[in-house]
Amino acid sequence: MQQSAGQPSRDAARLVVEHVEPSVDGGRFPVKRVVGDVVQASAVIFADGHEQLAAELRWRAIDEDAWFAARMTQGENDRWEGEFALARMGRHEFVVQAWLDRFGGFQRDFGKKVDAGVDQPVDRAEGMEMVRKAAARSKGDLGKQLKNQLAAMESADADAATEWLRSDGLRRLMDEADDRSHALTSAPQPVDAERVEAGFSSWYEIFPRSMTPNPERHGTFADVVDHLPRIRAMGFDTLYFPPIHPIGTANRKGPNNTLTPEEGDPGSPYAIGSPEGGHDAIHPELGTFEDFDRLVKAAADHGLEIALDFAIQASPDHPWLKEHPGWFAWLPDGSMKYAENPPKKYQDIVNVDFYGPDAVPGLWEALRDVILLWVEHGVKTFRVDNPHTKPLPFWEWMIGDVRARHPEVIFLSEAFTRPTMMYQLAKVGFSQSYTYFTWRDRKQELIDYITELTSEAPKDFYRPHFFVNTPDINPFFLQTGGRPAHRIRAVLAATLSGLWGVYSGFELCDATPLGAGKEEYLDSEKYEIRVRDWNAPGNIIDDVTRLNRLRRANPALQTHLNTRFYVAHDDNVIWYGKPAPSADGTLREMIMVMVNMDPHGAHACDYEVPLWEFGLHDQAAIDVEDLVHGHRFQWHGKIQHIHLAPDEPYRIWRLTRGGEGA
Amino acid sequence: MQQSAGQPSRDAARLVVEHVEPSVDGGRFPVKRVVGDVVQASAVIFADGHEQLAAELRWRAIDEDAWFAARMTQGENDRWEGEFALARMGRHEFVVQAWLDRFGGFQRDFGKKVDAGVDQPVDRAEGMEMVRKAAARSKGDLGKQLKNQLAAMESADADAATEWLRSDGLRRLMDEADDRSHALTSAPQPVDAERVEAGFSSWYEIFPRSMTPNPERHGTFADVVDHLPRIRAMGFDTLYFPPIHPIGTANRKGPNNTLTPEEGDPGSPYAIGSPEGGHDAIHPELGTFEDFDRLVKAAADHGLEIALDFAIQASPDHPWLKEHPGWFAWLPDGSMKYAENPPKKYQDIVNVDFYGPDAVPGLWEALRDVILLWVEHGVKTFRVDNPHTKPLPFWEWMIGDVRARHPEVIFLSEAFTRPTMMYQLAKVGFSQSYTYFTWRDRKQELIDYITELTSEAPKDFYRPHFFVNTPDINPFFLQTGGRPAHRIRAVLAATLSGLWGVYSGFELCDATPLGAGKEEYLDSEKYEIRVRDWNAPGNIIDDVTRLNRLRRANPALQTHLNTRFYVAHDDNVIWYGKPAPSADGTLREMIMVMVNMDPHGAHACDYEVPLWEFGLHDQAAIDVEDLVHGHRFQWHGKIQHIHLAPDEPYRIWRLTRGGEGA
Repeated sequence: MQQSAGQPSRDAARLVVEHVEPSVDGGRFPVKRVVGDVVQASAVIFADGHEQLAAELRWRAIDEDAWFAARMTQGENDRWEGEFALARMGRHEFVVQAWLDRFGGFQRDFGKKVDAGVDQPVDRAEGMEMVRKAAARSKGDLGKQLKNQLAAMESADADAATEWLRSDGLRRLMDEADDRSHALTSAPQPVDAERVEAGFSSWYEIFPRSMTPNPERHGTFADVVDHLPRIRAMGFDTLYFPPIHPIGTANRKGPNNTLTPEEGDPGSPYAIGSPEGGHDAIHPELGTFEDFDRLVKAAADHGLEIALDFAIQASPDHPWLKEHPGWFAWLPDGSMKYAENPPKKYQDIVNVDFYGPDAVPGLWEALRDVILLWVEHGVKTFRVDNPHTKPLPFWEWMIGDVRARHPEVIFLSEAFTRPTMMYQLAKVGFSQSYTYFTWRDRKQELIDYITELTSEAPKDFYRPHFFVNTPDINPFFLQTGGRPAHRIRAVLAATLSGLWGVYSGFELCDATPLGAGKEEYLDSEKYEIRVRDWNAPGNIIDDVTRLNRLRRANPALQTHLNTRFYVAHDDNVIWYGKPAPSADGTLREMIMVMVNMDPHGAHACDYEVPLWEFGLHDQAAIDVEDLVHGHRFQWHGKIQHIHLAPDEPYRIWRLTRGGEGA
Repeated sequence: MQQSAGQPSRDAARLVVEHVEPSVDGGRFPVKRVVGDVVQASAVIFADGHEQLAAELRWRAIDEDAWFAARMTQGENDRWEGEFALARMGRHEFVVQAWLDRFGGFQRDFGKKVDAGVDQPVDRAEGMEMVRKAAARSKGDLGKQLKNQLAAMESADADAATEWLRSDGLRRLMDEADDRSHALTSAPQPVDAERVEAGFSSWYEIFPRSMTPNPERHGTFADVVDHLPRIRAMGFDTLYFPPIHPIGTANRKGPNNTLTPEEGDPGSPYAIGSPEGGHDAIHPELGTFEDFDRLVKAAADHGLEIALDFAIQASPDHPWLKEHPGWFAWLPDGSMKYAENPPKKYQDIVNVDFYGPDAVPGLWEALRDVILLWVEHGVKTFRVDNPHTKPLPFWEWMIGDVRARHPEVIFLSEAFTRPTMMYQLAKVGFSQSYTYFTWRDRKQELIDYITELTSEAPKDFYRPHFFVNTPDINPFFLQTGGRPAHRIRAVLAATLSGLWGVYSGFELCDATPLGAGKEEYLDSEKYEIRVRDWNAPGNIIDDVTRLNRLRRANPALQTHLNTRFYVAHDDNVIWYGKPAPSADGTLREMIMVMVNMDPHGAHACDYEVPLWEFGLHDQAAIDVEDLVHGHRFQWHGKIQHIHLAPDEPYRIWRLTRGGEGA
């Protein structure tokens, strides 16, 4: 014997509404969009028999009671489509409702019979009976209109009654009066409308203490202000700092991650916390809160926002160890393990225990309050260090709580781990994510990776932030490829994704490794103050500036989602297009990028100009603008040829379908 | 402001358990299997940090309280795997439970330290503390064993304590005592274990009234008994009848679907119901319930089971119209529309209204009771006519209710409509389904169709029943292709799917259409009694008999799910293999089928023998048995050549990896 099937029920769903899109895990997590986006929604809808269906898309901001609604239209097979615009920031939700459109089905069938001349009086009687019932259940003006319509039809001759029964006017009244037989509503699908910078921004990372002009003196926030014009001139809009909090002295690291610091070594800013304070304090040598506020203001005046690091870990000197021992996991002998992220060892850091005896809600709320404190000081963007080693429910709660108060706040996940976890962190709330881009330096693997991000499930919740380097990652490609390699990676990051990031020094092509086979920088700023010559010869500041300028000027370059790869007949030459958005969906303009991914050698090949995307035949001409050098010309025909030497490893063109010649 | 994120909670799931397989819509509908199947289950499981995870597969028959459980093993990336056997019929369910394996993680890390010689006394103390806590929370014998173990370790020297801490014995005790930190259990996934015939059977369809030897006399159940030896000799195991109920006289159809019957025309058996009864009665000219019971018994003695048609519709003479007017939808003038399945018109039939005023539960239960009545008379298989024009919730309830009482009952869905609906009917309970096979007569479209059914979502819930013809469908391919076409379709249906069906007359290559461009049979048995010469020359009884014999003898031919297509260099020659099941997953034997799908011309081509599937190199030899003619030989090398003429359009071979020569 199996489970009882229960009783028959009139209420069991008769229709099927499935494959609602966009959706992340069936509505468990929000779909990510930015303000101004139009959400293209769809669902597969069907029912038994041959009755006519109707469907409606309903949406609202989560803090409003009223729903907007618009009829969906039937597309291919059983897929219905609709759309709505996200007019403001914050959490929204939508549902799809479907029902049996009884009067619509009557009009459809009655119309066919009338047109074929086989309609019977009983058909009209059936329609009028529907109007009678609708009038009876409708109140006010609508009920009155339906009653009047009915009276008119009853006293009219057959032809006039038939016309009325088929009319759009009656259709609209009946829609309004419809009791939506067998209506079924999908689960609500949350959608987060974030500010534009969640999807499009250009980051520059500095260690504030290195901004000193004098290597003997610790840099300050005031020193950073002096660098703002330089950074803004390169076109960046987000200026990101590693932790700016007091640094512990216990097990302080010396230069190059040594365990034997000398007097005066500044230590790693990731060893957060000293008797002078923890995550809610500022390292005294950088300045005061007043200095920080001045910097935030000055940055804003330059069109830059400050992003802070949020690294949940403590120096053994962090005040929390004494104030809140129940937030940490102690060993039986009263000691504590230092942090590890194998194979890396962080002897100057201990981790909190998110499930320690006093940790919930004490620690969780304290961490949330750290974020809120910095938000009050004008920080709206946080880069989170190693979030994959902290519990997912903490992130979901904390980010949800902060964004419920401040929907403009953006969190960037710095998780380099397995894809399942990287994607899950994005699902639970991170607006942006570090990626494998840093190590994808071969043509096919980069194509495969972008294709996964743009065409599979992540497209609706995972925004890839393409960093070309970080203080922790000095990629072998940059170490060994010199200036051409830096230019190659810059153009790829800046044109493939709406989000790209540069750790300062990259633009100077500084890629000296800690040692052979090491992916870290020599004399890393994590452990010492470094003063650089920001105009050092051989820099690629011109490339970076040009790329950021093109990104600002061309919406096509402000997202990864529109990337389309085309055929270039060389395994080193990558060739892709980014269509400009157009209101009617017709492609008129596309930014095209071609890169020789080999920093050591020239490559020449034929490639295909995607004339077909513009509706052009293979021999047609198309207008081309070279966005690097500025000149304009035409290509004639689909097959063209290119030669790319390492000293000019990329091209960026704008293709426009001209008025003539097409 | 957005939705509040609520309070931090220790109970929010810390682990992620997702992509549980097999699963139909996340557990909303059962996965379909048959008794004896081993269910291969898996899930993606992960958590923050570097802790060790453990996972368990738990399953039970739904009517049992106790769960079976077995540890899962970690496969590629974050996918964990397990399996369980379905030992008996009925609904089962399984879940995946995962948790942080704290002691396992300790043993892993402690072992590494000991092996590297860097373990500290505090590491042992940490392990012993875990044992102490486990002992404290464990009762009875387990608690005692843990306490003894702890006492022994505490009084032992460091080396001995270390050995104990690393031992499998302690591991097993600690597993048993584990409080499964942060345990998370997936949603239950239902699995239906049906009898073997749900997935493997060979159907033969007859109109009992045509089994008369004398065209002047209406055939009876007793006449059918006389045909059982002939049918069984062809190897069929399911004998299916269109409706056997009293036939109405109102608007009775004449021969060839005419609206002008003459005295003595028997009418369509689908016009169910007359003053002599409805779905719970037998057409008097066929016999009595006693005759029917005798037939069921005689069929069983021949290894045949009887399948009945379940057509939910009524002749205007059906007793229900008077007894239960609230089960029907009446027009305003008191008349009722006749049934349509556009473009087909059924003037002799009216439909019930499943949501009529008295229909729920009255009509639904009455229909369920019709099934239960026939089950009591030994019918365990029902072919359901046009289920897509009846509500899905009715089917889900009715089939669930019947199968809860009689899990051996099989329902076959005869829905020819859009794929969404055909698949949904299978989800809500139909064990088997009619398919598009009947119209897939070109090589690539057949490959595409089988690939969809075997590799996409339907594989877990949709069992395709390949009918070569039906009383409603006389495919153009058979009409125009003669005897070769019949042989081609027979071999394709019988070897591609575990379920195939023949409407009698097919084996005689009777395919005369109603008219040019019509897909119906001339002089259809639906409207008249037809007496055939069952040994008519040109029949393909030998083919049918051989195919059914091979299907019985070879489990490889009892499912569609194992079908693998290979390369044959001709667009008319289809070439596929069906591996024999093997306990260890190693392929040792494969049934291979090659068919020239062109009934009008010979085709010759090279083809690839899939030596690589057997782990053989491209020049190796493999043993071949011709399963049509019986002789044995060897192929040497991957590329072979074939010539297939219409008079011998197919080959069936058994490939076996021999002991030598491999």
